[in-house]
Amino acid sequence: MQRLPTIVDVASTAGVSRQTVSNVLNSPDIVKPETRIRVEAAIASLGYHPHESARRLRMRKSSTIGIRLDPQTDGISGSVLDRFLHALTEQAAEQGLRILLFTARDHHDEVTQIERLRDTGDVDAFVLTSTTLGDPRTTRLAELGVSFVTFGRPWGVDDMDDPAHLWVDVDGRSGLHEATSAYLSTGLRRVGYIGWPAGSGSGDDRMRGWRDAMLEAAQSPASGEVELEALCVAVEDGVSQGAEAYRRLRAAGEVDAVVCASDSLALGALLASGGAIPVTGYDDTPVAAAVGLSSVRQPLDEVAAGVLELLTGAHAGRSTGGPANDPRHRLVRPRLVTRSPAPLPPR
Amino acid sequence: MQRLPTIVDVASTAGVSRQTVSNVLNSPDIVKPETRIRVEAAIASLGYHPHESARRLRMRKSSTIGIRLDPQTDGISGSVLDRFLHALTEQAAEQGLRILLFTARDHHDEVTQIERLRDTGDVDAFVLTSTTLGDPRTTRLAELGVSFVTFGRPWGVDDMDDPAHLWVDVDGRSGLHEATSAYLSTGLRRVGYIGWPAGSGSGDDRMRGWRDAMLEAAQSPASGEVELEALCVAVEDGVSQGAEAYRRLRAAGEVDAVVCASDSLALGALLASGGAIPVTGYDDTPVAAAVGLSSVRQPLDEVAAGVLELLTGAHAGRSTGGPANDPRHRLVRPRLVTRSPAPLPPR
Repeated sequence: MQRLPTIVDVASTAGVSRQTVSNVLNSPDIVKPETRIRVEAAIASLGYHPHESARRLRMRKSSTIGIRLDPQTDGISGSVLDRFLHALTEQAAEQGLRILLFTARDHHDEVTQIERLRDTGDVDAFVLTSTTLGDPRTTRLAELGVSFVTFGRPWGVDDMDDPAHLWVDVDGRSGLHEATSAYLSTGLRRVGYIGWPAGSGSGDDRMRGWRDAMLEAAQSPASGEVELEALCVAVEDGVSQGAEAYRRLRAAGEVDAVVCASDSLALGALLASGGAIPVTGYDDTPVAAAVGLSSVRQPLDEVAAGVLELLTGAHAGRSTGGPANDPRHRLVRPRLVTRSPAPLPPR
Repeated sequence: MQRLPTIVDVASTAGVSRQTVSNVLNSPDIVKPETRIRVEAAIASLGYHPHESARRLRMRKSSTIGIRLDPQTDGISGSVLDRFLHALTEQAAEQGLRILLFTARDHHDEVTQIERLRDTGDVDAFVLTSTTLGDPRTTRLAELGVSFVTFGRPWGVDDMDDPAHLWVDVDGRSGLHEATSAYLSTGLRRVGYIGWPAGSGSGDDRMRGWRDAMLEAAQSPASGEVELEALCVAVEDGVSQGAEAYRRLRAAGEVDAVVCASDSLALGALLASGGAIPVTGYDDTPVAAAVGLSSVRQPLDEVAAGVLELLTGAHAGRSTGGPANDPRHRLVRPRLVTRSPAPLPPR
């Protein structure tokens, strides 16, 4: 099996950085003409095609898409990936594509498994989930010429428009911004945030949504900054962690409402508060519906549709606008689902 | 691809019923000697092997196991199959096997998809879930010589020991029996049951567990029968259906506690009761844990291990005892998880 030329091969042949090749493909105006000509010559001589991934899948050698499935954790937050898997399997089937599951110990092992499945011809293309800051998988897979789309942005990468990395993601910032603004608009002022330690791309993104909404509502930026310190707690994901974080928030001062990075955290905050204040979670899991938690719902059917469109190259005919509506990415908006706590046992 | 001889071929060649062939294989003592000799001759001449399925998978042509994945419903009861999929994928990977997902509109379509995947060599063997009374899939797949194991018993089939049908199931009757007995042992007498309409194999099995425990505790069998009529309600699965069923139970008389065929039904009963009486569900979903519902937990790791053992033929070397410990089946015991309702908002 011949290895397909990658963006790294082009950069090496042209004697430029990978970023420069990306610029030539996406924003040729900002590249010096002589450099651009050199890169274009390398692209032509190598037969590099930024959408090679998609074209290969359209040829459908195995009609199979691979995705890693991890062991289940508490079944609350993780269930969103199960919902995504159902949506992906269903929509793939409508296009005659099937889903192959595999497991991996870590990112490195995942790349090894993917390479093997690709090389044996068992799988044409892959979907990666839960992208992390500086995710080592995507760089390596692009170098290997593997066809893939991520559910999750390339966090920490300078150029999210790199054509070697097709992605779909949900705009967590806008979801938490909406949830926070909804509380602020009803007159609640001290809206707390319970999230994950800094460094997780999606967690940082959700936190920014809360933070921006709070700063917009603050009397002055300076007073806002001070207040936010005391209203933000970072813990690992989990119900008991959410309860502990709520107690820490309360110990630091008054709290009128809480928004959280996950339903697991939100359930913990709800239990610890005894329903004294309203709480909003993230992912709109069955648990949120059962206990009457408001939650930010990811439109997973839309995510699955976007992933398949990018994988099969159905997007390739569209005209390319700026990064905002670049057809090689999809940033979809979540939806706030508002509920009141269920009238559960008074004990 | 040559079709493998099946139990139906043997029956046809020997001029006997399928049941008789099964008897020759499992309980030769109850078959007339001349019939037995005729069947054994047919088995030898056709080269029929009851464990052909398992032997073929051990040859591992594609190292892939296929399983149908349906669209998600309310995410509560259905999540048990997601947990099973995680366990199956993980344990299969440890044996170098992968899982291929496909979808189907109904039982008939599922058989068609399976046949296609088998014939193209993409999948060696299949796992079927949610077996129904008189399930048309298993008979047809046995005729087609497809390798499969079901998670679920062959409900309504006279001979659950038929070697053409390998199965693993959870003993729902014992789970509901334990849950009901636990309430009875604390002095509660009128334990109600909310389940599904008669005719679903697993629902009927769970109902029998409740019923048997109640009859064992009744003063006389006759008085028990009368009382049980008023304590049993059948509805479709769902939270609102569970709430409605609870109201019907209450309208019919006093109820001290309720056991249910699913956590969806149990959540509905809990919400409708306002926590006035204890409720036990089935599947021990994250929702049960979140709201503090007792629930019967299926040991899905054990189910997945049993399915793989039967599929790969790892059981074939064991000695065959009676049907109770027949190594071609596994009936595993669930576990009752006891909880008290969570101290949730007094609204």
